[in-house]
Amino acid sequence: MAQAVAGPEIERLIQLLARLPGLGPRSARRAALHLIKKREALLAPLADAMKVASERIVVCRECGNVDTSDPCTICRDASRDPSILVVVEDVSDLWALERSGAVTARYHVLGGVLSALDGVRPEHLNLASLVDRAGNGEVREIILALNATVDGQTTAHYVTESLAHHGLKVTRLAHGVPVGGELDYLDEGTLSAAIRSRTAF
Amino acid sequence: MAQAVAGPEIERLIQLLARLPGLGPRSARRAALHLIKKREALLAPLADAMKVASERIVVCRECGNVDTSDPCTICRDASRDPSILVVVEDVSDLWALERSGAVTARYHVLGGVLSALDGVRPEHLNLASLVDRAGNGEVREIILALNATVDGQTTAHYVTESLAHHGLKVTRLAHGVPVGGELDYLDEGTLSAAIRSRTAF
Repeated sequence: MAQAVAGPEIERLIQLLARLPGLGPRSARRAALHLIKKREALLAPLADAMKVASERIVVCRECGNVDTSDPCTICRDASRDPSILVVVEDVSDLWALERSGAVTARYHVLGGVLSALDGVRPEHLNLASLVDRAGNGEVREIILALNATVDGQTTAHYVTESLAHHGLKVTRLAHGVPVGGELDYLDEGTLSAAIRSRTAF
Repeated sequence: MAQAVAGPEIERLIQLLARLPGLGPRSARRAALHLIKKREALLAPLADAMKVASERIVVCRECGNVDTSDPCTICRDASRDPSILVVVEDVSDLWALERSGAVTARYHVLGGVLSALDGVRPEHLNLASLVDRAGNGEVREIILALNATVDGQTTAHYVTESLAHHGLKVTRLAHGVPVGGELDYLDEGTLSAAIRSRTAF
Protein backbone atom coordinates (compact mmCIF):
# COMPACT_ATOMS: atom_id res chain seq x y z
CA MET A 1 0.00 0.00 0.00
CA ALA A 2 1.24 3.48 -0.85
CA GLN A 3 1.56 6.33 1.64
CA ALA A 4 -1.35 6.62 4.05
CA VAL A 5 -3.66 9.33 2.79
CA ALA A 6 -6.65 8.99 5.11
CA GLY A 7 -6.80 8.68 8.88
CA PRO A 8 -5.68 5.42 10.56
CA GLU A 9 -9.28 4.23 11.01
CA ILE A 10 -10.01 4.55 7.29
CA GLU A 11 -6.63 3.06 6.33
CA ARG A 12 -7.29 0.04 8.53
CA LEU A 13 -10.71 -0.45 6.93
CA ILE A 14 -9.13 -0.25 3.46
CA GLN A 15 -6.36 -2.71 4.36
CA LEU A 16 -8.81 -5.27 5.74
CA LEU A 17 -11.18 -4.88 2.77
CA ALA A 18 -8.23 -5.42 0.40
CA ARG A 19 -7.83 -8.92 1.85
CA LEU A 20 -11.23 -10.02 0.54
CA PRO A 21 -11.07 -12.19 -2.58
CA GLY A 22 -11.85 -10.11 -5.67
CA LEU A 23 -10.86 -6.78 -4.11
CA GLY A 24 -7.44 -5.23 -4.72
CA PRO A 25 -6.04 -2.06 -3.11
CA ARG A 26 -7.85 0.22 -5.58
CA SER A 27 -11.25 -1.44 -5.34
CA ALA A 28 -10.84 -1.69 -1.55
CA ARG A 29 -10.48 2.11 -1.44
CA ARG A 30 -13.59 2.50 -3.61
CA ALA A 31 -15.48 0.07 -1.36
CA ALA A 32 -14.35 1.90 1.80
CA LEU A 33 -15.45 5.25 0.40
CA HIS A 34 -18.78 3.76 -0.68
CA LEU A 35 -19.26 2.37 2.84
CA ILE A 36 -18.40 5.72 4.45
CA LYS A 37 -20.84 7.54 2.20
CA LYS A 38 -23.60 5.03 2.99
CA ARG A 39 -22.85 4.90 6.67
CA GLU A 40 -26.39 4.44 7.97
CA ALA A 41 -27.66 2.26 5.13
CA LEU A 42 -24.66 -0.03 4.64
CA LEU A 43 -21.61 0.45 6.89
CA ALA A 44 -23.35 0.11 10.25
CA PRO A 45 -25.57 -2.85 9.15
CA LEU A 46 -22.56 -4.63 7.61
CA ALA A 47 -20.52 -4.13 10.79
CA ASP A 48 -23.40 -5.66 12.78
CA ALA A 49 -23.88 -8.56 10.33
CA MET A 50 -20.16 -9.35 10.52
CA LYS A 51 -20.17 -9.22 14.30
CA VAL A 52 -23.17 -11.58 14.45
CA ALA A 53 -21.52 -13.91 11.94
CA SER A 54 -18.21 -13.83 13.77
CA GLU A 55 -19.89 -14.71 17.07
CA ARG A 56 -22.50 -17.20 15.98
CA ILE A 57 -21.26 -19.17 12.98
CA VAL A 58 -19.89 -22.62 13.72
CA VAL A 59 -18.68 -25.55 11.65
CA CYS A 60 -21.08 -28.52 11.70
CA ARG A 61 -19.28 -31.46 13.34
CA GLU A 62 -21.44 -33.85 11.34
CA CYS A 63 -20.82 -32.64 7.77
CA GLY A 64 -18.39 -29.69 7.85
CA ASN A 65 -20.95 -27.11 6.63
CA VAL A 66 -20.97 -23.64 8.22
CA ASP A 67 -24.13 -22.52 10.01
CA THR A 68 -25.28 -20.93 13.23
CA SER A 69 -26.21 -24.32 14.68
CA ASP A 70 -24.31 -27.58 15.15
CA PRO A 71 -25.52 -29.94 13.69
CA CYS A 72 -26.33 -27.57 10.80
CA THR A 73 -29.81 -26.90 9.39
CA ILE A 74 -29.28 -29.43 6.59
CA CYS A 75 -28.10 -32.22 8.92
CA ARG A 76 -31.10 -31.55 11.23
CA ASP A 77 -33.58 -31.53 8.34
CA ALA A 78 -35.55 -34.79 8.87
CA SER A 79 -37.10 -34.52 5.39
CA ARG A 80 -33.75 -35.16 3.74
CA ASP A 81 -32.85 -38.65 2.56
CA PRO A 82 -30.40 -40.10 5.13
CA SER A 83 -29.31 -42.89 2.79
CA ILE A 84 -27.31 -40.63 0.43
CA LEU A 85 -24.26 -38.48 1.19
CA VAL A 86 -23.08 -35.91 -1.37
CA VAL A 87 -19.32 -35.37 -0.96
CA VAL A 88 -18.12 -31.86 -1.91
CA GLU A 89 -14.78 -30.08 -1.73
CA ASP A 90 -15.93 -26.85 -0.16
CA VAL A 91 -18.96 -25.13 1.40
CA SER A 92 -19.24 -23.00 -1.77
CA ASP A 93 -19.93 -26.23 -3.74
CA LEU A 94 -22.59 -27.19 -1.19
CA TRP A 95 -24.22 -23.77 -1.67
CA ALA A 96 -24.05 -24.18 -5.47
CA LEU A 97 -25.76 -27.59 -5.31
CA GLU A 98 -28.39 -26.26 -2.88
CA ARG A 99 -29.17 -23.43 -5.31
CA SER A 100 -29.75 -26.05 -8.03
CA GLY A 101 -32.36 -27.70 -5.81
CA ALA A 102 -31.26 -31.10 -7.18
CA VAL A 103 -30.02 -32.52 -3.88
CA THR A 104 -32.55 -33.84 -1.37
CA ALA A 105 -29.94 -35.71 0.65
CA ARG A 106 -27.20 -34.61 3.05
CA TYR A 107 -23.65 -33.45 2.40
CA HIS A 108 -20.11 -34.07 3.54
CA VAL A 109 -17.63 -31.21 3.09
CA LEU A 110 -14.05 -32.46 2.66
CA GLY A 111 -12.58 -28.99 3.16
CA GLY A 112 -10.21 -29.35 0.20
CA VAL A 113 -8.81 -31.86 -2.26
CA LEU A 114 -5.61 -33.91 -2.21
CA SER A 115 -2.79 -32.02 -3.86
CA ALA A 116 0.84 -33.10 -4.06
CA LEU A 117 1.76 -29.59 -5.21
CA ASP A 118 0.10 -27.83 -2.28
CA GLY A 119 1.08 -30.55 0.20
CA VAL A 120 -2.53 -31.48 1.01
CA ARG A 121 -2.56 -35.07 2.32
CA PRO A 122 -5.53 -37.25 3.35
CA GLU A 123 -5.14 -36.37 7.04
CA HIS A 124 -5.72 -32.67 6.18
CA LEU A 125 -9.19 -33.46 4.84
CA ASN A 126 -12.45 -34.15 6.66
CA LEU A 127 -12.11 -37.79 5.56
CA ALA A 128 -12.07 -39.93 8.71
CA SER A 129 -15.50 -38.57 9.68
CA LEU A 130 -16.78 -39.42 6.17
CA VAL A 131 -15.65 -43.05 6.61
CA ASP A 132 -17.40 -43.09 10.02
CA ARG A 133 -20.63 -41.61 8.65
CA ALA A 134 -20.61 -43.95 5.65
CA GLY A 135 -20.52 -46.91 8.04
CA ASN A 136 -23.43 -45.80 10.24
CA GLY A 137 -25.80 -48.35 8.67
CA GLU A 138 -28.17 -45.76 7.17
CA VAL A 139 -26.01 -44.60 4.24
CA ARG A 140 -26.32 -46.64 1.03
CA GLU A 141 -24.94 -44.29 -1.63
CA ILE A 142 -22.07 -41.80 -1.80
CA ILE A 143 -22.27 -39.20 -4.60
CA LEU A 144 -18.83 -37.74 -5.34
CA ALA A 145 -19.59 -34.15 -6.41
CA LEU A 146 -15.96 -33.09 -6.75
CA ASN A 147 -14.55 -30.70 -9.33
CA ALA A 148 -13.60 -32.28 -12.66
CA THR A 149 -9.97 -31.27 -12.16
CA VAL A 150 -6.93 -33.53 -11.76
CA ASP A 151 -6.83 -32.96 -7.99
CA GLY A 152 -10.60 -33.39 -7.71
CA GLN A 153 -10.53 -36.70 -9.56
CA THR A 154 -7.48 -37.95 -7.63
CA THR A 155 -9.40 -37.21 -4.45
CA ALA A 156 -12.48 -38.99 -5.83
CA HIS A 157 -10.39 -42.14 -6.37
CA TYR A 158 -8.88 -41.91 -2.90
CA VAL A 159 -12.29 -41.44 -1.26
CA THR A 160 -13.66 -44.43 -3.21
CA GLU A 161 -10.80 -46.64 -1.96
CA SER A 162 -11.22 -45.41 1.62
CA LEU A 163 -14.89 -46.40 1.50
CA ALA A 164 -14.39 -49.74 -0.32
CA HIS A 165 -14.77 -51.89 2.83
CA HIS A 166 -18.28 -50.50 3.46
CA GLY A 167 -19.53 -52.00 0.17
CA LEU A 168 -21.60 -48.88 -0.67
CA LYS A 169 -22.71 -47.63 -4.05
CA VAL A 170 -20.32 -44.83 -5.06
CA THR A 171 -21.35 -42.53 -7.93
CA ARG A 172 -20.03 -39.35 -9.45
CA LEU A 173 -21.52 -36.41 -11.38
CA ALA A 174 -22.15 -36.93 -15.10
CA HIS A 175 -19.82 -35.32 -17.63
CA GLY A 176 -21.42 -33.65 -20.63
CA VAL A 177 -22.43 -30.49 -22.43
CA PRO A 178 -23.43 -27.70 -19.98
CA VAL A 179 -27.04 -26.54 -20.41
CA GLY A 180 -26.91 -23.55 -22.78
CA GLY A 181 -23.39 -24.53 -23.86
CA GLU A 182 -22.13 -24.36 -27.45
CA LEU A 183 -20.25 -27.37 -28.79
CA ASP A 184 -17.74 -25.19 -30.63
CA TYR A 185 -16.47 -23.80 -27.31
CA LEU A 186 -16.17 -27.11 -25.47
CA ASP A 187 -12.95 -29.09 -25.07
CA GLU A 188 -12.45 -32.52 -26.68
CA GLY A 189 -12.65 -34.37 -23.34
CA THR A 190 -16.09 -32.98 -22.57
CA LEU A 191 -17.35 -33.73 -26.08
CA SER A 192 -16.02 -37.32 -25.94
CA ALA A 193 -17.69 -37.82 -22.57
CA ALA A 194 -20.95 -36.36 -23.89
CA ILE A 195 -20.90 -38.76 -26.87
CA ARG A 196 -20.04 -41.81 -24.73
CA SER A 197 -22.79 -40.99 -22.20
CA ARG A 198 -25.42 -40.07 -24.82
CA THR A 199 -29.03 -40.66 -23.78
CA ALA A 200 -32.21 -41.57 -25.69
CA PHE A 201 -34.02 -38.55 -27.14
CA MET B 1 -30.77 -13.42 -5.27
CA ALA B 2 -31.55 -17.07 -5.74
CA GLN B 3 -33.04 -19.32 -3.09
CA ALA B 4 -31.43 -18.91 0.34
CA VAL B 5 -28.98 -21.76 0.84
CA ALA B 6 -27.27 -20.74 4.07
CA GLY B 7 -28.70 -19.56 7.39
CA PRO B 8 -30.26 -16.08 7.64
CA GLU B 9 -27.12 -14.62 9.30
CA ILE B 10 -24.90 -15.75 6.41
CA GLU B 11 -27.47 -14.69 3.81
CA ARG B 12 -27.66 -11.21 5.32
CA LEU B 13 -23.85 -10.94 5.27
CA ILE B 14 -23.81 -12.00 1.59
CA GLN B 15 -26.58 -9.55 0.65
CA LEU B 16 -24.81 -6.61 2.32
CA LEU B 17 -21.43 -7.55 0.79
CA ALA B 18 -23.06 -7.72 -2.65
CA ARG B 19 -23.88 -4.01 -2.34
CA LEU B 20 -20.19 -3.07 -2.32
CA PRO B 21 -18.89 -1.68 -5.62
CA GLY B 22 -16.98 -4.37 -7.51
CA LEU B 23 -18.73 -7.31 -5.81
CA GLY B 24 -21.64 -9.14 -7.45
CA PRO B 25 -23.75 -11.91 -5.89
CA ARG B 26 -21.18 -14.58 -6.76
CA SER B 27 -18.12 -12.75 -5.49
CA ALA B 28 -20.07 -11.67 -2.40
CA ARG B 29 -20.64 -15.37 -1.61
CA ARG B 30 -16.93 -16.06 -2.10
CA ALA B 31 -16.05 -13.11 0.12
CA ALA B 32 -18.50 -14.22 2.83
CA LEU B 33 -17.09 -17.74 2.85
CA HIS B 34 -13.54 -16.37 2.96
CA LEU B 35 -14.53 -14.19 5.93
CA ILE B 36 -16.16 -17.10 7.75
CA LYS B 37 -13.08 -19.26 7.23
CA LYS B 38 -10.79 -16.50 8.51
CA ARG B 39 -13.01 -15.57 11.39
CA GLU B 40 -10.34 -14.65 13.93
CA ALA B 41 -7.89 -13.11 11.46
CA LEU B 42 -10.29 -11.16 9.25
CA LEU B 43 -14.02 -11.29 10.03
CA ALA B 44 -13.85 -10.07 13.64
CA PRO B 45 -11.22 -7.34 12.94
CA LEU B 46 -13.19 -6.14 9.90
CA ALA B 47 -16.41 -6.00 11.94
CA ASP B 48 -14.57 -3.90 14.54
CA ALA B 49 -12.96 -1.62 11.94
CA MET B 50 -16.36 -1.02 10.36
CA LYS B 51 -17.96 -0.27 13.70
CA VAL B 52 -15.19 2.23 14.56
CA ALA B 53 -15.49 3.84 11.12
CA SER B 54 -19.27 4.00 11.34
CA GLU B 55 -19.11 5.69 14.76
CA ARG B 56 -16.16 8.02 14.35
CA ILE B 57 -15.93 9.17 10.72
CA VAL B 58 -17.31 12.62 10.02
CA VAL B 59 -17.37 14.95 7.01
CA CYS B 60 -15.07 17.98 7.40
CA ARG B 61 -17.25 21.12 7.41
CA GLU B 62 -14.34 23.09 6.03
CA CYS B 63 -13.43 21.08 2.90
CA GLY B 64 -15.80 18.09 2.60
CA ASN B 65 -13.10 15.45 3.23
CA VAL B 66 -13.93 12.42 5.42
CA ASP B 67 -11.89 11.91 8.58
CA THR B 68 -12.29 11.15 12.27
CA SER B 69 -11.89 14.84 13.17
CA ASP B 70 -13.66 18.02 12.01
CA PRO B 71 -11.83 20.03 10.71
CA CYS B 72 -9.99 17.15 9.06
CA THR B 73 -6.27 16.36 9.44
CA ILE B 74 -5.44 18.16 6.19
CA CYS B 75 -7.36 21.33 7.11
CA ARG B 76 -5.67 21.38 10.55
CA ASP B 77 -2.18 20.84 9.07
CA ALA B 78 -0.48 24.23 9.61
CA SER B 79 2.40 23.27 7.31
CA ARG B 80 0.09 23.33 4.26
CA ASP B 81 -0.04 26.40 2.07
CA PRO B 82 -3.29 28.27 2.96
CA SER B 83 -3.15 30.38 -0.19
CA ILE B 84 -4.06 27.55 -2.60
CA LEU B 85 -7.24 25.47 -2.73
CA VAL B 86 -7.36 22.33 -4.88
CA VAL B 87 -10.95 21.69 -5.99
CA VAL B 88 -11.80 18.00 -6.53
CA GLU B 89 -14.98 16.13 -7.40
CA ASP B 90 -14.78 13.40 -4.79
CA VAL B 91 -12.79 12.22 -1.75
CA SER B 92 -11.29 9.46 -3.92
CA ASP B 93 -9.67 12.18 -6.09
CA LEU B 94 -8.31 13.85 -2.94
CA TRP B 95 -6.79 10.49 -1.93
CA ALA B 96 -5.30 10.03 -5.40
CA LEU B 97 -3.66 13.48 -5.30
CA GLU B 98 -2.37 12.88 -1.77
CA ARG B 99 -0.76 9.63 -2.93
CA SER B 100 1.04 11.59 -5.65
CA GLY B 101 2.55 13.84 -2.97
CA ALA B 102 2.29 16.76 -5.42
CA VAL B 103 -0.17 18.83 -3.38
CA THR B 104 1.11 20.81 -0.39
CA ALA B 105 -2.02 22.96 -0.16
CA ARG B 106 -5.56 22.29 1.02
CA TYR B 107 -8.56 20.83 -0.78
CA HIS B 108 -12.20 21.50 -1.42
CA VAL B 109 -14.39 18.48 -2.21
CA LEU B 110 -17.39 19.40 -4.40
CA GLY B 111 -19.11 16.07 -3.81
CA GLY B 112 -19.98 15.60 -7.49
CA VAL B 113 -20.06 17.41 -10.81
CA LEU B 114 -22.87 19.25 -12.58
CA SER B 115 -24.82 16.88 -14.80
CA ALA B 116 -27.95 17.70 -16.76
CA LEU B 117 -28.46 13.97 -17.37
CA ASP B 118 -28.30 12.99 -13.69
CA GLY B 119 -30.10 16.17 -12.57
CA VAL B 120 -27.14 17.44 -10.52
CA ARG B 121 -27.51 21.22 -10.18
CA PRO B 122 -25.15 23.75 -8.52
CA GLU B 123 -27.12 23.72 -5.24
CA HIS B 124 -26.40 19.96 -4.90
CA LEU B 125 -22.66 20.60 -4.78
CA ASN B 126 -20.46 21.86 -1.96
CA LEU B 127 -20.10 25.13 -3.91
CA ALA B 128 -21.39 27.94 -1.64
CA SER B 129 -18.77 27.02 0.96
CA LEU B 130 -16.07 27.11 -1.74
CA VAL B 131 -17.11 30.68 -2.68
CA ASP B 132 -16.97 31.58 1.04
CA ARG B 133 -13.53 30.01 1.55
CA ALA B 134 -12.17 31.59 -1.61
CA GLY B 135 -13.12 35.02 -0.23
CA ASN B 136 -11.47 34.58 3.18
CA GLY B 137 -8.55 36.85 2.22
CA GLU B 138 -5.91 34.11 2.50
CA VAL B 139 -6.65 32.21 -0.72
CA ARG B 140 -4.92 33.48 -3.85
CA GLU B 141 -5.16 30.51 -6.24
CA ILE B 142 -7.79 27.91 -7.03
CA ILE B 143 -6.54 24.75 -8.81
CA LEU B 144 -9.41 22.97 -10.57
CA ALA B 145 -8.45 19.27 -10.37
CA LEU B 146 -11.64 17.96 -11.97
CA ASN B 147 -11.94 14.99 -14.31
CA ALA B 148 -11.29 15.72 -17.99
CA THR B 149 -14.84 14.66 -18.87
CA VAL B 150 -17.64 16.79 -20.33
CA ASP B 151 -19.36 17.08 -16.92
CA GLY B 152 -16.04 17.77 -15.19
CA GLN B 153 -15.18 20.56 -17.58
CA THR B 154 -18.70 22.05 -17.46
CA THR B 155 -18.34 22.14 -13.69
CA ALA B 156 -14.89 23.75 -14.00
CA HIS B 157 -16.39 26.55 -16.08
CA TYR B 158 -19.26 27.04 -13.63
CA VAL B 159 -16.90 27.15 -10.63
CA THR B 160 -14.67 29.68 -12.43
CA GLU B 161 -17.67 31.95 -13.06
CA SER B 162 -18.89 31.60 -9.46
CA LEU B 163 -15.46 32.74 -8.23
CA ALA B 164 -14.98 35.53 -10.80
CA HIS B 165 -15.88 38.35 -8.38
CA HIS B 166 -13.03 37.33 -6.01
CA GLY B 167 -10.44 38.13 -8.71
CA LEU B 168 -8.35 35.03 -7.85
CA LYS B 169 -5.96 33.10 -10.06
CA VAL B 170 -7.83 30.01 -11.32
CA THR B 171 -5.78 27.18 -12.87
CA ARG B 172 -6.51 23.66 -14.07
CA LEU B 173 -4.49 20.44 -14.44
CA ALA B 174 -2.31 20.14 -17.55
CA HIS B 175 -3.42 17.88 -20.38
CA GLY B 176 -0.76 15.67 -21.96
CA VAL B 177 0.75 12.23 -22.40
CA PRO B 178 0.46 10.14 -19.18
CA VAL B 179 3.86 9.12 -17.76
CA GLY B 180 4.61 5.68 -19.23
CA GLY B 181 1.95 6.17 -21.90
CA GLU B 182 2.33 5.13 -25.54
CA LEU B 183 1.36 7.66 -28.21
CA ASP B 184 -0.23 4.99 -30.37
CA TYR B 185 -2.87 4.30 -27.71
CA LEU B 186 -3.78 7.92 -26.97
CA ASP B 187 -6.75 9.76 -28.45
CA GLU B 188 -6.35 12.70 -30.82
CA GLY B 189 -7.52 15.28 -28.26
CA THR B 190 -4.80 14.28 -25.78
CA LEU B 191 -2.13 14.29 -28.50
CA SER B 192 -3.23 17.74 -29.77
CA ALA B 193 -3.11 19.09 -26.20
CA ALA B 194 0.35 17.56 -25.65
CA ILE B 195 1.67 19.20 -28.83
CA ARG B 196 0.11 22.58 -28.00
CA SER B 197 1.48 22.53 -24.43
CA ARG B 198 4.94 21.21 -25.42
CA THR B 199 7.78 22.20 -23.11
CA ALA B 200 11.51 22.83 -23.64
CA PHE B 201 13.64 19.67 -23.45
